[in-house]
Amino acid sequence: MFHHVKELQFNARVSKPDPRFANLLLEQFGGENGELAAAMQYFTQAFGAKMPHPDKYDMLMDIATEEFSHLEIVGATIQMLLKGVNGELKDAAEQSEIMQVMNGTEAKESIIHAALTSNPQFPIITGGGPTPRNSQGIPWCASYISSNGDLTVDLRSNLASESRAKLVYEHLMKFTDDPYIHQTLSFLMTREVTHFKMFEAALDTIQPNFPPGVLSADPRFLQQAYNLSAGSVRGPWNEGEMKGMGKEFEYVKDPIAYVQDTGGLTNLPDPKKAELAKSNKLDKEMSKLKSEEVKKTEPAGVAQWSNYAEVTL
Amino acid sequence: MFHHVKELQFNARVSKPDPRFANLLLEQFGGENGELAAAMQYFTQAFGAKMPHPDKYDMLMDIATEEFSHLEIVGATIQMLLKGVNGELKDAAEQSEIMQVMNGTEAKESIIHAALTSNPQFPIITGGGPTPRNSQGIPWCASYISSNGDLTVDLRSNLASESRAKLVYEHLMKFTDDPYIHQTLSFLMTREVTHFKMFEAALDTIQPNFPPGVLSADPRFLQQAYNLSAGSVRGPWNEGEMKGMGKEFEYVKDPIAYVQDTGGLTNLPDPKKAELAKSNKLDKEMSKLKSEEVKKTEPAGVAQWSNYAEVTL
Amino acid sequence: MFHHVKELQFNARVSKPDPRFANLLLEQFGGENGELAAAMQYFTQAFGAKMPHPDKYDMLMDIATEEFSHLEIVGATIQMLLKGVNGELKDAAEQSEIMQVMNGTEAKESIIHAALTSNPQFPIITGGGPTPRNSQGIPWCASYISSNGDLTVDLRSNLASESRAKLVYEHLMKFTDDPYIHQTLSFLMTREVTHFKMFEAALDTIQPNFPPGVLSADPRFLQQAYNLSAGSVRGPWNEGEMKGMGKEFEYVKDPIAYVQDTGGLTNLPDPKKAELAKSNKLDKEMSKLKSEEVKKTEPAGVAQWSNYAEVTL
Amino acid sequence: MFHHVKELQFNARVSKPDPRFANLLLEQFGGENGELAAAMQYFTQAFGAKMPHPDKYDMLMDIATEEFSHLEIVGATIQMLLKGVNGELKDAAEQSEIMQVMNGTEAKESIIHAALTSNPQFPIITGGGPTPRNSQGIPWCASYISSNGDLTVDLRSNLASESRAKLVYEHLMKFTDDPYIHQTLSFLMTREVTHFKMFEAALDTIQPNFPPGVLSADPRFLQQAYNLSAGSVRGPWNEGEMKGMGKEFEYVKDPIAYVQDTGGLTNLPDPKKAELAKSNKLDKEMSKLKSEEVKKTEPAGVAQWSNYAEVTL
Amino acid sequence: MFHHVKELQFNARVSKPDPRFANLLLEQFGGENGELAAAMQYFTQAFGAKMPHPDKYDMLMDIATEEFSHLEIVGATIQMLLKGVNGELKDAAEQSEIMQVMNGTEAKESIIHAALTSNPQFPIITGGGPTPRNSQGIPWCASYISSNGDLTVDLRSNLASESRAKLVYEHLMKFTDDPYIHQTLSFLMTREVTHFKMFEAALDTIQPNFPPGVLSADPRFLQQAYNLSAGSVRGPWNEGEMKGMGKEFEYVKDPIAYVQDTGGLTNLPDPKKAELAKSNKLDKEMSKLKSEEVKKTEPAGVAQWSNYAEVTL
Amino acid sequence: MFHHVKELQFNARVSKPDPRFANLLLEQFGGENGELAAAMQYFTQAFGAKMPHPDKYDMLMDIATEEFSHLEIVGATIQMLLKGVNGELKDAAEQSEIMQVMNGTEAKESIIHAALTSNPQFPIITGGGPTPRNSQGIPWCASYISSNGDLTVDLRSNLASESRAKLVYEHLMKFTDDPYIHQTLSFLMTREVTHFKMFEAALDTIQPNFPPGVLSADPRFLQQAYNLSAGSVRGPWNEGEMKGMGKEFEYVKDPIAYVQDTGGLTNLPDPKKAELAKSNKLDKEMSKLKSEEVKKTEPAGVAQWSNYAEVTL
Repeated sequence: MFHHVKELQFNARVSKPDPRFANLLLEQFGGENGELAAAMQYFTQAFGAKMPHPDKYDMLMDIATEEFSHLEIVGATIQMLLKGVNGELKDAAEQSEIMQVMNGTEAKESIIHAALTSNPQFPIITGGGPTPRNSQGIPWCASYISSNGDLTVDLRSNLASESRAKLVYEHLMKFTDDPYIHQTLSFLMTREVTHFKMFEAALDTIQPNFPPGVLSADPRFLQQAYNLSAGSVRGPWNEGEMKGMGKEFEYVKDPIAYVQDTGGLTNLPDPKKAELAKSNKLDKEMSKLKSEEVKKTEPAGVAQWSNYAEVTL
Repeated sequence: MFHHVKELQFNARVSKPDPRFANLLLEQFGGENGELAAAMQYFTQAFGAKMPHPDKYDMLMDIATEEFSHLEIVGATIQMLLKGVNGELKDAAEQSEIMQVMNGTEAKESIIHAALTSNPQFPIITGGGPTPRNSQGIPWCASYISSNGDLTVDLRSNLASESRAKLVYEHLMKFTDDPYIHQTLSFLMTREVTHFKMFEAALDTIQPNFPPGVLSADPRFLQQAYNLSAGSVRGPWNEGEMKGMGKEFEYVKDPIAYVQDTGGLTNLPDPKKAELAKSNKLDKEMSKLKSEEVKKTEPAGVAQWSNYAEVTL
Repeated sequence: MFHHVKELQFNARVSKPDPRFANLLLEQFGGENGELAAAMQYFTQAFGAKMPHPDKYDMLMDIATEEFSHLEIVGATIQMLLKGVNGELKDAAEQSEIMQVMNGTEAKESIIHAALTSNPQFPIITGGGPTPRNSQGIPWCASYISSNGDLTVDLRSNLASESRAKLVYEHLMKFTDDPYIHQTLSFLMTREVTHFKMFEAALDTIQPNFPPGVLSADPRFLQQAYNLSAGSVRGPWNEGEMKGMGKEFEYVKDPIAYVQDTGGLTNLPDPKKAELAKSNKLDKEMSKLKSEEVKKTEPAGVAQWSNYAEVTL
Repeated sequence: MFHHVKELQFNARVSKPDPRFANLLLEQFGGENGELAAAMQYFTQAFGAKMPHPDKYDMLMDIATEEFSHLEIVGATIQMLLKGVNGELKDAAEQSEIMQVMNGTEAKESIIHAALTSNPQFPIITGGGPTPRNSQGIPWCASYISSNGDLTVDLRSNLASESRAKLVYEHLMKFTDDPYIHQTLSFLMTREVTHFKMFEAALDTIQPNFPPGVLSADPRFLQQAYNLSAGSVRGPWNEGEMKGMGKEFEYVKDPIAYVQDTGGLTNLPDPKKAELAKSNKLDKEMSKLKSEEVKKTEPAGVAQWSNYAEVTL
Repeated sequence: MFHHVKELQFNARVSKPDPRFANLLLEQFGGENGELAAAMQYFTQAFGAKMPHPDKYDMLMDIATEEFSHLEIVGATIQMLLKGVNGELKDAAEQSEIMQVMNGTEAKESIIHAALTSNPQFPIITGGGPTPRNSQGIPWCASYISSNGDLTVDLRSNLASESRAKLVYEHLMKFTDDPYIHQTLSFLMTREVTHFKMFEAALDTIQPNFPPGVLSADPRFLQQAYNLSAGSVRGPWNEGEMKGMGKEFEYVKDPIAYVQDTGGLTNLPDPKKAELAKSNKLDKEMSKLKSEEVKKTEPAGVAQWSNYAEVTL
Repeated sequence: MFHHVKELQFNARVSKPDPRFANLLLEQFGGENGELAAAMQYFTQAFGAKMPHPDKYDMLMDIATEEFSHLEIVGATIQMLLKGVNGELKDAAEQSEIMQVMNGTEAKESIIHAALTSNPQFPIITGGGPTPRNSQGIPWCASYISSNGDLTVDLRSNLASESRAKLVYEHLMKFTDDPYIHQTLSFLMTREVTHFKMFEAALDTIQPNFPPGVLSADPRFLQQAYNLSAGSVRGPWNEGEMKGMGKEFEYVKDPIAYVQDTGGLTNLPDPKKAELAKSNKLDKEMSKLKSEEVKKTEPAGVAQWSNYAEVTL
């Protein structure tokens, strides 16, 4: 259950209206890497995490709740950046004055002109307020979020999400010189870094966590690095040790010939039979282990989400 | 700022897994009339309402927060309805058993089979958990919500939204006989009715509130009801009094001839000049009034959202 | 069956080209609150309304047909506002002149420059014509429309749609000083008000029409107003009479404690058993009534939509 | 201006309800190749066609209007195929009976069961009516339509659209044995063929119409057919005459070597200078011609769409 | 299997950065008529073409591969047009300088200012690189492509796609005076013309190819041209011969009366019985022929895509 | 420039048709975590990587090209799984036989029935072939991919993408018992693991790479872990060392009080001034360094993507 207090988590302030920056800031309200995306991603992941990992459920709900609070900060800032637009719109009968401003020398000073230029929907559709769309008007879409029911995957999705969100705040800071907004953005950007470290620590507590999921990699196909963009540079990503795997990259210099020679990789020179058997055995053990981990925490009979005392229907 | 407690607002329980109903219930998690849509609509409207109408801001945030809590109830119910799916998926190496179930006589009993049939993404993508999509897999989209910066419009959008949400819960109740879920859905459905009454009462406190927005209707074009689908039935919607307007409907029986005869309505038999002048005068007064209402509540200088004491930067 | 005459329903005229306003006007061609959305919403609702309510079917088809005619007016206006763009584009070999205009002092006068600045797709994709997208380029999407097979809900959706459409026209009028366009927009805006009154009158003829749908509200959960955004202002939406319900709001001041104390609302101090029984009885009666209303109008045997005489296959 | 008569263009009838086929038929109501897509494509194209080509405007509006009438036929058929669903939904209090049907032996006969299985939104969202979505629930989207302001392009888009629509009707006919529906689909399918021939005839009246648009092809790059999928079969599409162009295909057998040898095609063995000059000259002539064609039909001064007599404002 | 060489198919060069043109050019990277759409359309069609038409599979893969190479050219050009943006963004701590540029007289020269104005996502989201979205920020969407498993339809879809892509390049060329880019666009535009001719030639090799698909048109409904937009101009599209069909258009001057008189076209004056029988017979023959054509090329037993020698599992 | 050979990278084979599994497999053809998403993500990132990091450009193009080859494998497998559908569709005149199958006892054996049940678009729209949509029919959308012009971010996005893709293959393998498909999926799943290790190794070569982007975290807000979901469990993610940061988590037990007491965090007990100064200094150094890194690799004057010799225009 959620609760709300009127105070923002951070004391967001704005020196003066700036619809252009308000439009940029929509990226963090309704954009693909914004606060709604973060909040909904962790909130959605939390449901699946609860049964096997109640501690991770707590962490995900903590951070999701904070992201909803950040969404509120971003929305409040956008609203303050649009000060004046709504009031002007309500002056609905006075189009003549507006038009003088639109055509004439005062255009630069007009908040309505700025709103219209930066985002035509600010004065036409949103009435001078935030909207869960990005800076180009694309409505926020749930395909922005990843929630796949496996923490070794979900937490990695989160590390990536936090990285992108941090970068977007970094970029945004270049486009305003309002010191109050800088303070707010610096706070929000930093929290993404904190969350990154929290998710990273949580992932470390799950062992083994690689490869993500349950099954191990097929030893026959794991080590090849294919030279598919003719003449690739060599580097630690296609030669030497595969860190933590106890194996080395095998560079396939002429992949077309190699594939043709091996009957589409089904007739490999070294079929690695022993390794394959070992890997299959490991898969079975891990499957049993991970499956039990979930099953044993799911109650038999009627399921109840919260710890309320039993009541008759 | 949001806060979260572990207890759900309603003690959601589930008798036994039912992926098919879980899929239907997605309509209220990630569907166009669902809880996320409601929560985000009121939350987004609240920003614009705050300055002229802090009391309505409170109401919108109250209800938005309740809708987030309902979203949590729906998500928890879906998760409980999918019990068993995630555990089976983790048993990743054991595909042979699954396939026996898939092909054979046990198919009906298999939770995995049911999950796959009702929503192929439950076992392939979401790992047996909720996802902010509807029952057909469409990701939730912010174009579901309306927020237009004018309470006489926004509150009417909300009356419609609550009506649709109520109907969807009514429909959903037909498709489960689990008494626990019925109790939960009955609670959720009823809250939509309560919110309807709250929004209605709030709209009544704003006077005048019709027509929505600021401008009055153009008296020249207000009264016509066009018979555009040849041979329309007459009823109170195209004859008699226009309730509360002090006017009557004028039925245009042959609209094509009427439009052609009036030069595309620019050469009307009765141009209603006096009414038009009156309406224009009213528009100017209302514009001034409504515009002032907003402007006078917006602070000069640095804007600050919350009531924190002043701090130096 | 539809028919078309060349004359517009309103004699749309344009003083001079203005691609910027053409772009804003796209909101009413392909936007979420525009004419296509209105036309398709009422047209789609009409199918479901026909059987139980042939008179409402007529009304919905009348208004849908008018909205298609309005869509045509909006499209024609956009086309006239883009005069010059298509002709310039056909002068395909003459890029050098365009570029002088783009870089030089004549830029402001160039219609192509204005088209490109207001909407890059006007000269690149649409060839200087309208397109069913909004002012930010989002393609019109059927998720904008609501049609739920229940007139007590659909008509409320329509009241909200007309409110929003009216407001958008009001906003649009501020951004042009072309008196011809003002006349057109004033006509279109006013028709939304007329349709509002028509839908309202139609809803009044259906009794009872509240709550929307068939089922009554659960008396146990109907009256609470939760103080979920700490310290909410009191008003007619959370205290006093629930208009028309014969009940009063019950203000829950500390909802977290209340929910925890009542076992997630499943152990209420006053379970309202008598009211619940009454409500259940009413539900059964209404279900029977409303169900019969539909069933008795649906023909047995072969269904035929129009009143054509019977023909052998 | 549109007008509507109650009679359908074709006497659509349905033998018995069939929600599964209703769902398939949604492809032609709200699908990418369906009637709404066709109607909106020709309607949108018509605006741009009017000025240079009033005869093509007529044709496009004729066919657009017919497609709206077809959309109505498809919608009416879907509604008739869902007979029984809405009535059952209104029986809202009687979930117990439904559930017996859902679980028990009567399942196959239940129209509600069939509706739920074929499209979960039929009973949950649309209330047993059509919806402008496709058979998988994707809302109709304006990106389905093409309108590019050039008839040599638009008419070709239409030939393709009609081809796809024809094929979809052909496929649909395989999935129903209702003779009434077959008759309706046969009519609708055939009209796509007729429209194909109409668009083809219209394209022929515009000369030259190839290449589409205004500019000719660059003679240096026109004739090469690249063997990019190693070992391609030879055929009239990569050898012999380029029909109607007075040129032959030049087969580039080893395109990587060819591109590397010619400095990325900027250093061609035969730079075709004379042809290039001729082509540039032609481009200038065509640009002037096509540009004039548009410009001379656009009126100076106030633009008016319909032929109404002049009225003072 | 794909392979990549570092050299572009065409030596793309750029004189100087121009974010505005980079934004326009996105139409051909991630737009509805762009190179990704073309590549994915032909690539997807190729799978279905392989079995009955291995030669057309080759052609489709040849052209798809070329379109992927064109996508690379367009992306490289956009990247070069954004030169300077990424470097400036990395100078993350120096917002003060940027803001001077933003507000002051240097604004016009600033590459960052130009990037921000033409597409706010260039500096905020993409970090100064291409993105598979169009010039208005709409993400590329697979509903742009058509692939329907029938070459008489697919090839016509391709003729339309190439026509639109050609026109877009023609339009784009008007908005840059960079001679290097002109050269690149001229190459790309011309290749669309070449592909048109290739698809046209391929369609000619399939006989009969009209009507598209398998079934013939219903002779009862084929010839009517309805005057549905009152007072339509007559032309070869509604009078005279239907080219190649051995039939004439029948102009229905008053379609409403005609439809009403014929019982919704089910009671036609001339039911064309003999023609209908002939058409049905032809349908059966063609069905058998076309069906066999596919079936006989599909192998029995285990299917293998490539011509690799058999290997034991 | 791309090139294609007919042989698949892996010898994909299929024992027998299975439209249901074909539908599931669409997740890896046109789904959010599928091969097209991977290919387009790395391909798009490559453009921005080239200038500062030509070695990473190589790696990204290598892997992108491999992903396109995987997309081909998945498409070929889907096509083979749909064997029989296209042939049956071509038998267009024989609806009666189909319907016997649909209604009768042979339904289970019919490939058409299976295709229709698993995905209605297989027989209606795609003609029995793959389509770039997911298992629920959602068209592939470019918002699935992340490309942000900073390798410390992009490579982390890729680690997450590979993790999700690996998990989806793991899930898919549970739903087929075809040993040939298992082999193919095992190959594809493993390659995701290999790519993970390649991206990880590449990220390691960029130092420092944390925080992602250029700016350091604000020391005032970095360490707090807020207890926002009342009563959170403690763990390494909210207590003890922040790994690699030389700092400790600070647990804020009552965040509402804390925020209220600190004036919305603007009046912190410990403002960490020295740390802040150090962090600002570091930001300036890093900005200069990272900015130079890009700028010095961008050529002055005309930009050319490939290493072709200079040619005069």
